[in-house]
Amino acid sequence: MSASTVEVFAHSTELADELASAIPADRLVTDRDVIATYLHDEAEWAPYGAPLLVVRPRSAEEVQSVVRACIVRHVPVVTRGAGTGLSGGANAIDGCVIVSFDKMNTIKEINSLERLAVVEPGVVNDDLRAACAEEGLWYPPDPSSAAWSTIGGNVATNAGGLCCVKYGVTRDYVLGVQVVTGTGELVRLGRRTAKGVAGYDLAGLMVGSEGTLGVITEITVKLRPLQEPQRTIVGYFDSTVDAGHAVRAVAEDGLTPSALELIDRQCLVAVDAWKNMGLSADANVLLLGRIDTPGAVGDIEAERMLACYKRAGATWSAQSTNQQEADALFLARRLAYPALERLGPVLTEDICVPKAVVPEMLTRIEEIGLRYDTHIASIAHAGDGNLHPLLITPNDDEDARIRAQAAFAEIIDAAIRYGGTVTGEHGIGLLKMDGLAQELVPPVMDMHRAVKGALDPHGIMNPGKVFRL
Amino acid sequence: MSASTVEVFAHSTELADELASAIPADRLVTDRDVIATYLHDEAEWAPYGAPLLVVRPRSAEEVQSVVRACIVRHVPVVTRGAGTGLSGGANAIDGCVIVSFDKMNTIKEINSLERLAVVEPGVVNDDLRAACAEEGLWYPPDPSSAAWSTIGGNVATNAGGLCCVKYGVTRDYVLGVQVVTGTGELVRLGRRTAKGVAGYDLAGLMVGSEGTLGVITEITVKLRPLQEPQRTIVGYFDSTVDAGHAVRAVAEDGLTPSALELIDRQCLVAVDAWKNMGLSADANVLLLGRIDTPGAVGDIEAERMLACYKRAGATWSAQSTNQQEADALFLARRLAYPALERLGPVLTEDICVPKAVVPEMLTRIEEIGLRYDTHIASIAHAGDGNLHPLLITPNDDEDARIRAQAAFAEIIDAAIRYGGTVTGEHGIGLLKMDGLAQELVPPVMDMHRAVKGALDPHGIMNPGKVFRL
Repeated sequence: MSASTVEVFAHSTELADELASAIPADRLVTDRDVIATYLHDEAEWAPYGAPLLVVRPRSAEEVQSVVRACIVRHVPVVTRGAGTGLSGGANAIDGCVIVSFDKMNTIKEINSLERLAVVEPGVVNDDLRAACAEEGLWYPPDPSSAAWSTIGGNVATNAGGLCCVKYGVTRDYVLGVQVVTGTGELVRLGRRTAKGVAGYDLAGLMVGSEGTLGVITEITVKLRPLQEPQRTIVGYFDSTVDAGHAVRAVAEDGLTPSALELIDRQCLVAVDAWKNMGLSADANVLLLGRIDTPGAVGDIEAERMLACYKRAGATWSAQSTNQQEADALFLARRLAYPALERLGPVLTEDICVPKAVVPEMLTRIEEIGLRYDTHIASIAHAGDGNLHPLLITPNDDEDARIRAQAAFAEIIDAAIRYGGTVTGEHGIGLLKMDGLAQELVPPVMDMHRAVKGALDPHGIMNPGKVFRL
Repeated sequence: MSASTVEVFAHSTELADELASAIPADRLVTDRDVIATYLHDEAEWAPYGAPLLVVRPRSAEEVQSVVRACIVRHVPVVTRGAGTGLSGGANAIDGCVIVSFDKMNTIKEINSLERLAVVEPGVVNDDLRAACAEEGLWYPPDPSSAAWSTIGGNVATNAGGLCCVKYGVTRDYVLGVQVVTGTGELVRLGRRTAKGVAGYDLAGLMVGSEGTLGVITEITVKLRPLQEPQRTIVGYFDSTVDAGHAVRAVAEDGLTPSALELIDRQCLVAVDAWKNMGLSADANVLLLGRIDTPGAVGDIEAERMLACYKRAGATWSAQSTNQQEADALFLARRLAYPALERLGPVLTEDICVPKAVVPEMLTRIEEIGLRYDTHIASIAHAGDGNLHPLLITPNDDEDARIRAQAAFAEIIDAAIRYGGTVTGEHGIGLLKMDGLAQELVPPVMDMHRAVKGALDPHGIMNPGKVFRL
């Protein structure tokens, strides 16, 4: 045991003793081996530190006790859902307490009359969707991680997903949150009513703030009626750039698809290697479009989407008549990221650019990959201009890592120059801090610091993430 | 000329001299008679003070010059669109500068590919909608004041409207804003891309902040494709409470109307007295529902809405087969407020309650009106639970005013007790400051103060509105 380990151990014992009156011992984790499973999210090469302990609260009041103890002792608080984040936002900080929401996963209410649900932060996205479906309701935001990621994490990062192109992101569905504030108060922000403008939109400010402004202990989300059945329109393309032209054509045509996903052959091959789904296509790039407009109007829209594919040079395209096959393609889309991760470290980009420049941006990404001798696979919420180039490196190849990180930075530069943003839906965390400082001018960075200082006066809420103070 | 008038005059001359280098004299208003037309919005009995001068900038840079001069001199800045607000948010403060956006009314861009528009704050809501329609696009937020109110004012108050019940409020359409901050910087917040989570949602924070956090100089809004044709489903009811039951029935049935407006006979009579539209119905209360789902699915939904009306005791109901008649009914709805204003001072409520308690809330409003001997007409965005009881008083009747103000306060109390909010879409301004302090617990009020202090460190942005520091 090193000197610093002894010190961490002493601190953690003191804090654990103090918290013991509020939280049962079996949910105060001090065992280093167990703590090791809570150290970081899925962001490749993002640093993480050594926490004092991990707390697994069962109630907002328990969270409040933890935060209050941390304020007194100036201990950083890092909040964690399922740890599926891709930017390092949930990574441990030296000497922090990790608040893990794995024991707070109750759906408290699904109200069909008011069309809302109230959930604890640890509820898994797909579980909420399934529970809503039983009531004829729909919670749209569907990040690719929906089978694992939690609503709390989704709210902290303002997660997107596949259906955003028509139905918006997490922010668009958060009516209210209960929060333990930076001053240790347990409060409700936002509302349960359909409308409401009483005071500043502090609930909205919490969404996407990545745990830096408070700890969210409950979320009230807006629901929609169940989605109409979707038609799936599949297109094969020779190149990502051709597929990018099809994406642009769909936007120019005025269509509003319920999904428009791009996935390249490398991803399909990786999924097949893992799940043996037999999907590896004859094409280099797949576009998976969906239309959920009901009736004859939807049929016409599907035809228009096919025409857009063809104009952009699709080598094959058709409306899927086999629902099972269509669902398999979308499942492959969701599995692409974990499938590629099995091959080696994957650095995940998350830029979002105007739809007009999707083809140019895809060209640039290819060019950057070649120049840095970096293998780049591509998935994208293409209809939103939200591109996820996946920079794949061999295990234990330091040179390849350095080249990939340089390519990553240059893709960010290009996105900003094209009028885009460094992060469409994954958040800043640790990986995009330089990118944020590039994207925002200094006075706007100062506004961030001012807001952070106002709501987290003790500086304990996930410090050192998103931006430097 | 009183001593204080002399003092105001001296200050205004000094400031005008200082601003003369940045802003031409004809847009620096010091004439007291002209200034008198910029003193207040349409909130009844909300106090207003004497401004130093009125500035009518033509550019964001001119606004910045004004704000910087005001920072140096500790002069409050009050921003103003068309002055159609109903809560006193734009009312002059003693010794302030009024920044009026009547000269900044250019639509800078309508982009059909990215589905966005960029506008100056003084653009009138209906003008933006008309310009978008020419491109096959739609800007949905449609406050009743849409023919006069500006996008800047709509953003400052997070205005709602008739189509919100299906399409959301102003907040849901603001992608980005350009702002002169409380420190005099001219910055852009938000984005032009479909998605983006780079940093805090400061653009969202500006929406609904009623000019207390900065001066908005440009707005980028999201657009939708043109709305489908709407069916209008009209129902007559004996009482507002019966109509409230129909509203609840529509929600219970799982319908998503594109409008669901309640309007009582008093409003129709007032509109007829003004515009001679011949609308005064045989019924005491009208419900105006709309369905814009295309095709046969929409036809079925319209039938379901009729069935809801009937179950709730409609004395007559039908789908309008005459588009002109249907449009006239909605025009009457929009004209109700100005029509009633012609009869005497009108105190406008703006509570929003859960849909489940709409009938109970309407019952309470009637009871409160009787108890305070106050004449209350009713219009409502009923499908949202957003109710606008209109408290009408005779001219120059001090007793009636006091009774109406007491009834106003008691309606707010009731809305909060029913789980509602004191303002659904008009904002806090001056009229609802006590209501806000009732609705929010002290630690949340403190969060408001902290955010205000962080972003408006000199305290010059519309001080004394929304909450007390």
